[in-house]
Amino acid sequence: MNMLVDGEWRTDAYETTSEDGSFERQETTFRDRIRDDPDAQFQPEAGRYHLYVSYACPWAHRTLVTRALKGLEDAISVSVVDPYRDEDGWQFTPEKEGCTRDHVHDTDYLRELYVEADPDATCRVTVPVLWDTEENTIVNNESKEIMRMLDTEFDEYAERDVDLYPDGNQEEVDRIINEIYEPINNGVYRAGFATEQEPYDEAVDDLFSALDHWDDVLADQRYLAGDRLTEADVAMFTTLIRFDNVYHTHFMCNIQYIREYENLWPYLRDLYQTPGVAKTVDMDHIREHYYTTHPDVNPHGIVARGPDLDLEAPHDRDELPGELPADLVTPADD
Amino acid sequence: MNMLVDGEWRTDAYETTSEDGSFERQETTFRDRIRDDPDAQFQPEAGRYHLYVSYACPWAHRTLVTRALKGLEDAISVSVVDPYRDEDGWQFTPEKEGCTRDHVHDTDYLRELYVEADPDATCRVTVPVLWDTEENTIVNNESKEIMRMLDTEFDEYAERDVDLYPDGNQEEVDRIINEIYEPINNGVYRAGFATEQEPYDEAVDDLFSALDHWDDVLADQRYLAGDRLTEADVAMFTTLIRFDNVYHTHFMCNIQYIREYENLWPYLRDLYQTPGVAKTVDMDHIREHYYTTHPDVNPHGIVARGPDLDLEAPHDRDELPGELPADLVTPADD
Repeated sequence: MNMLVDGEWRTDAYETTSEDGSFERQETTFRDRIRDDPDAQFQPEAGRYHLYVSYACPWAHRTLVTRALKGLEDAISVSVVDPYRDEDGWQFTPEKEGCTRDHVHDTDYLRELYVEADPDATCRVTVPVLWDTEENTIVNNESKEIMRMLDTEFDEYAERDVDLYPDGNQEEVDRIINEIYEPINNGVYRAGFATEQEPYDEAVDDLFSALDHWDDVLADQRYLAGDRLTEADVAMFTTLIRFDNVYHTHFMCNIQYIREYENLWPYLRDLYQTPGVAKTVDMDHIREHYYTTHPDVNPHGIVARGPDLDLEAPHDRDELPGELPADLVTPADD
Repeated sequence: MNMLVDGEWRTDAYETTSEDGSFERQETTFRDRIRDDPDAQFQPEAGRYHLYVSYACPWAHRTLVTRALKGLEDAISVSVVDPYRDEDGWQFTPEKEGCTRDHVHDTDYLRELYVEADPDATCRVTVPVLWDTEENTIVNNESKEIMRMLDTEFDEYAERDVDLYPDGNQEEVDRIINEIYEPINNGVYRAGFATEQEPYDEAVDDLFSALDHWDDVLADQRYLAGDRLTEADVAMFTTLIRFDNVYHTHFMCNIQYIREYENLWPYLRDLYQTPGVAKTVDMDHIREHYYTTHPDVNPHGIVARGPDLDLEAPHDRDELPGELPADLVTPADD
């Protein structure tokens, strides 16, 4: 595997499995904030910031969904890397379907941006990256924080009046985002990247206990935090949408499919059918990435077929308490 | 991998993947027959023949199910190998749960029997093996033929009056056994051992087309050949019982679980609940074998959790035309 060490690309330096065979995710490194505040170094503007994503990556996907729900497509542009990641890391292959060039720098590899931002960078090279074209640097590469900035700091430029971090619910939203991270969002990786039986078993137990819990919660309320769509749903969505086709088999999270859950499955369809969301989902990129990028897990790189999911099927969850912001019920362009 | 070459154990000689990345199963090599005929070299007798099996192996499992349905436990004894198969091949580890010593020769490795039977043997060393303690040789190591011999040649020693190859249905039974072999019984291996995308995709297409077909057939009839339990059902059973816990994830046959099929799932429970069958199923051996024995497929040897299957749930298939032989409806020991 690989990472930047003092600005040099090293293929022998990426280690995320601890001695007991459990997977440990490393911290992201660029943690500045865009704030709607005249004294802030990074202030919200249309056209100033650029988002680097992979359609395959659930963390990057959070930022894409938030951008779509808010209607920030014109304010914040996007470059999309190749879903296949080899020892050179994420790269730009604009000739490939669904991928783009690096619209800002025209680099070949994402790691070049990291060195541009910090010539001495020592870190993993990950998506999403929120780039500032004015200061020519990375503002932030932590998905939760980028999601929050897009949600709360860019209302002036958003085409839709959508607030995913509503007053009165903020503590609850933060609590849920944290609560689902370890067992669910990161849990699938802990299961899939475990190299010993015990950490795998623990991860799978934690994961399905948490899924069972949220399936119960969602019997009586439309969204994770109650009757309003929030960032917590965005965070849950990008894991659930990958589950049956990737995590279930590739990461051996195979106690059951999401489509077998009584409430999580219609909940997933409800989110998918929310205006703006479906076009952020590229299942081909998702499937190609996982199955071909982890030879330690899937040596021959065969892309598993997976179940056919009818994500467009009626979900009937609008009968539960709660409703979408008006801008998401009858959007201009859907 | 490994096989016998001129009676020598070779670890570099087992090759079952062709140039285009598809899996090709090699022919079995010992093909003599026990016949209820005074002129036959191998005649049916109680206590003369011994069966070598792995609980993990679907081919060996066919012979165990047939032996159980017929009530041949006292007439034909059994040795059970370790489910974990390393580069030394199948071996005897009597200290391990569910395993036995080699009751006939007390060897350590199954390959020793093959050399005992033929000092110049060149072949893969597989289960099941039907051993003749009188001639001290292998009669046969082809599951379909052993199943047939146990079914048709040992009625004199069988505790139950059960005929799995009934007059009037024989052509149909042979046809079905052959018809399900390539897409289903061997199809899961073709999917799991493919090293290129195209042969995998073909195998998965063939497999699920065949499963869909038989799911339709089983809507109106209790068994594959109509209203009678036959060898064809035994051949189908040993693949279906492994499907959701192993083939689905380990071999990426993941379009859907068997438990999601409208008719195949109750059909599987019906067979499982047929007297004698459940005790031939050792799911621990099955899971350990596949997940730990194929590092090319599952490098870290993590045993996937898999779904909890309620195989004892009512199946209601006795409402369909057809019924079990009387000896299987009220057996003495169930």
